[in-house]
Amino acid sequence: MSNVLKKEDFIMPEGVIYLDGNSLGPMPKSVPERLAQVMNEEWAQMLIRGWNKAGWMAQPTDIGTRVGRLIGAEAGSVVMGDTLSVKVYQALAAGLKMRPDRRVILSDNGNFPSDLYMAEGLVGLLGQDYELRTVAPEDVAGAIDDDVAVVMLTEVDYRTGRMHDMKAVTEMAYAAGAVMVWDLAHSAGAIPVDLAAANCEFAVGCTYKYLNGGPGAPAFIYVRPDLADTAEPALSGWLGHASPFDFDLHYKPAQGIERMRVGTPPVLQMAALDEAMKVWDGIAMSDVRAASIALQEQFIEEVERDVPQLSLASPREAKQRGSQVSFRFEHGYAAMQAVIDRGVIGDFRAPDIMRFGFTPLYLDSSDVTAAVKIIRDVMENRLWDDEAYKVRGRVT
Amino acid sequence: MSNVLKKEDFIMPEGVIYLDGNSLGPMPKSVPERLAQVMNEEWAQMLIRGWNKAGWMAQPTDIGTRVGRLIGAEAGSVVMGDTLSVKVYQALAAGLKMRPDRRVILSDNGNFPSDLYMAEGLVGLLGQDYELRTVAPEDVAGAIDDDVAVVMLTEVDYRTGRMHDMKAVTEMAYAAGAVMVWDLAHSAGAIPVDLAAANCEFAVGCTYKYLNGGPGAPAFIYVRPDLADTAEPALSGWLGHASPFDFDLHYKPAQGIERMRVGTPPVLQMAALDEAMKVWDGIAMSDVRAASIALQEQFIEEVERDVPQLSLASPREAKQRGSQVSFRFEHGYAAMQAVIDRGVIGDFRAPDIMRFGFTPLYLDSSDVTAAVKIIRDVMENRLWDDEAYKVRGRVT
Repeated sequence: MSNVLKKEDFIMPEGVIYLDGNSLGPMPKSVPERLAQVMNEEWAQMLIRGWNKAGWMAQPTDIGTRVGRLIGAEAGSVVMGDTLSVKVYQALAAGLKMRPDRRVILSDNGNFPSDLYMAEGLVGLLGQDYELRTVAPEDVAGAIDDDVAVVMLTEVDYRTGRMHDMKAVTEMAYAAGAVMVWDLAHSAGAIPVDLAAANCEFAVGCTYKYLNGGPGAPAFIYVRPDLADTAEPALSGWLGHASPFDFDLHYKPAQGIERMRVGTPPVLQMAALDEAMKVWDGIAMSDVRAASIALQEQFIEEVERDVPQLSLASPREAKQRGSQVSFRFEHGYAAMQAVIDRGVIGDFRAPDIMRFGFTPLYLDSSDVTAAVKIIRDVMENRLWDDEAYKVRGRVT
Repeated sequence: MSNVLKKEDFIMPEGVIYLDGNSLGPMPKSVPERLAQVMNEEWAQMLIRGWNKAGWMAQPTDIGTRVGRLIGAEAGSVVMGDTLSVKVYQALAAGLKMRPDRRVILSDNGNFPSDLYMAEGLVGLLGQDYELRTVAPEDVAGAIDDDVAVVMLTEVDYRTGRMHDMKAVTEMAYAAGAVMVWDLAHSAGAIPVDLAAANCEFAVGCTYKYLNGGPGAPAFIYVRPDLADTAEPALSGWLGHASPFDFDLHYKPAQGIERMRVGTPPVLQMAALDEAMKVWDGIAMSDVRAASIALQEQFIEEVERDVPQLSLASPREAKQRGSQVSFRFEHGYAAMQAVIDRGVIGDFRAPDIMRFGFTPLYLDSSDVTAAVKIIRDVMENRLWDDEAYKVRGRVT
């Protein structure tokens, strides 16, 4: 296994062990200089001409290629833009259009809520007996029947890290004639994904977690190449038009993945993400995965040995987990605040999940040991039992 | 009239007269320092904690308040996010839901194409005889009948600068029982808008033009306060949920304008926009309007005197124009490239419109005179008749 540790490429605050890269990745060192250049040399000096001269217009597909490599996507099948929620909506709406005789979107209750909310909004808008059907993760396979137009799942559960078997579920959806939409929010940059082999119709994801694109970095959408010239984008904005600058009165979708573009792309966020993606040059996801599992196994072993108050919420088997480890603890919210106050940043997910992300680009074995020591200290000394830590409203 | 000229607050490249702030505003000088601070002190140092500690989560409504002041919106009625196309979609979808017995979205063929495209996408998705009806701008009034669920118009025509009478049209829509959606893309920061008085249900707009928020800056949406607790956002993302961090399985819209939020906001773009909005502190839109009209009138007078090859495409009467002046010229595309090459940046809109924006925060009377001199030189000497200028594909 090659070494994937690139600590020197990231800024990490003094005294922090960051186990929350699954929520917001840290800043790659070279981002501020790149943004300064985009502002001072492109926006300020090129003005409107930056759209072509600085390549702003091409960023969504250029960066899509970089992201696509990490998720095993075919060349030219990924485009960046909007937020993950908006891309989920596009994939769902396009999927429903592909199965006009069916009315059900099937998902599971381990999906990230925003995906479910977007589906609710879509079926609410459509009316006509359209329905979001939500089952337990283990019941998904049995629930894929002839009513299902679209199966929408997040590969890695945001709370527990439990993974769906992408290939197996996609095959079941295919066999039942349903369109498959995968949300790769906790997969891209975290685990190897092979979209080309998975044969799903759509995939979506975000880039501010394991890809370190910065707060609010653009999302991505993948459309299987054989469908990219026919999928209806639903959110049919001008930059998805075949000739945006002809200003036709009628929408004519661009060929290929470009049709999934909507409005004017956020150039500053795109540039930050583009810069952040350079960290991945030459890195193989299989090496990242191996390093991640090593860190996770060490963490579980040390926590179970030293911190008996916590009980494992993630699957025990490494291959069934994404790149995070979650533990349950009744007072998890307060405990996490106490842990954070002592420099180990993880996060909390209701009702009782303490979540720790493992990101081998900037974490090593000594970080894990140091983190467990602090968690142990908080638990042994009941440091969580402080009113100040129980006040809700902090994002973490 | 107070002086609104703030040239010293903007970066302008040497030798450029910028008449394209209606497409992409120039960079306010203080933006790079602000972004450096957001990157180095917030993202890099606070990491995930920035969402609360640095106020990232509140940016969309905080900046909404700043933008709201310039468009006469009631306090708390504007929120930032996504792109203008996405906000158009939300307004249209919510408007259709308010008039379940009607099937028509009415617009005009002077509207910006992306607004029409988004409406086409929406009616295509809905099926069931939903229809986008597009008439000539002068025929809108006569076309507002009992079939119309939503009237969607852009106040200022992107090609000619011609203005709709917002108050009059809104009253007609109201009388016919239709919901009114105004696109303020070429209004916000360009002309005084009084949304509270207009009584329209929705308004949307972008911030990278006259508000100088930078390429791809976030859009805004306004919902009339009495409807903000009932309007259905259609794109029902988690940050529009009443309690996003409870991670409920079902969507429950937030009270008020927050429900129009969708996904994770683009923090870097928000910060750039927030900084850019400071330029407007203490500036009255009535003063901006007076200064803009003075510049436009001077420009028209000097062009008509010195450049007879061009014919006015904008309304001659100042009060019927937004903050731009357009001229028709058969070889307008090539002519604009020649003009740009000589330092006067305007833009071109098909088929033959040379468009010049007037932005009194950073343009004065001497700029107008200098610009006309260059345009005259290009036309007198047929400098546009150069093959290099005829090659399409440049954004401007």
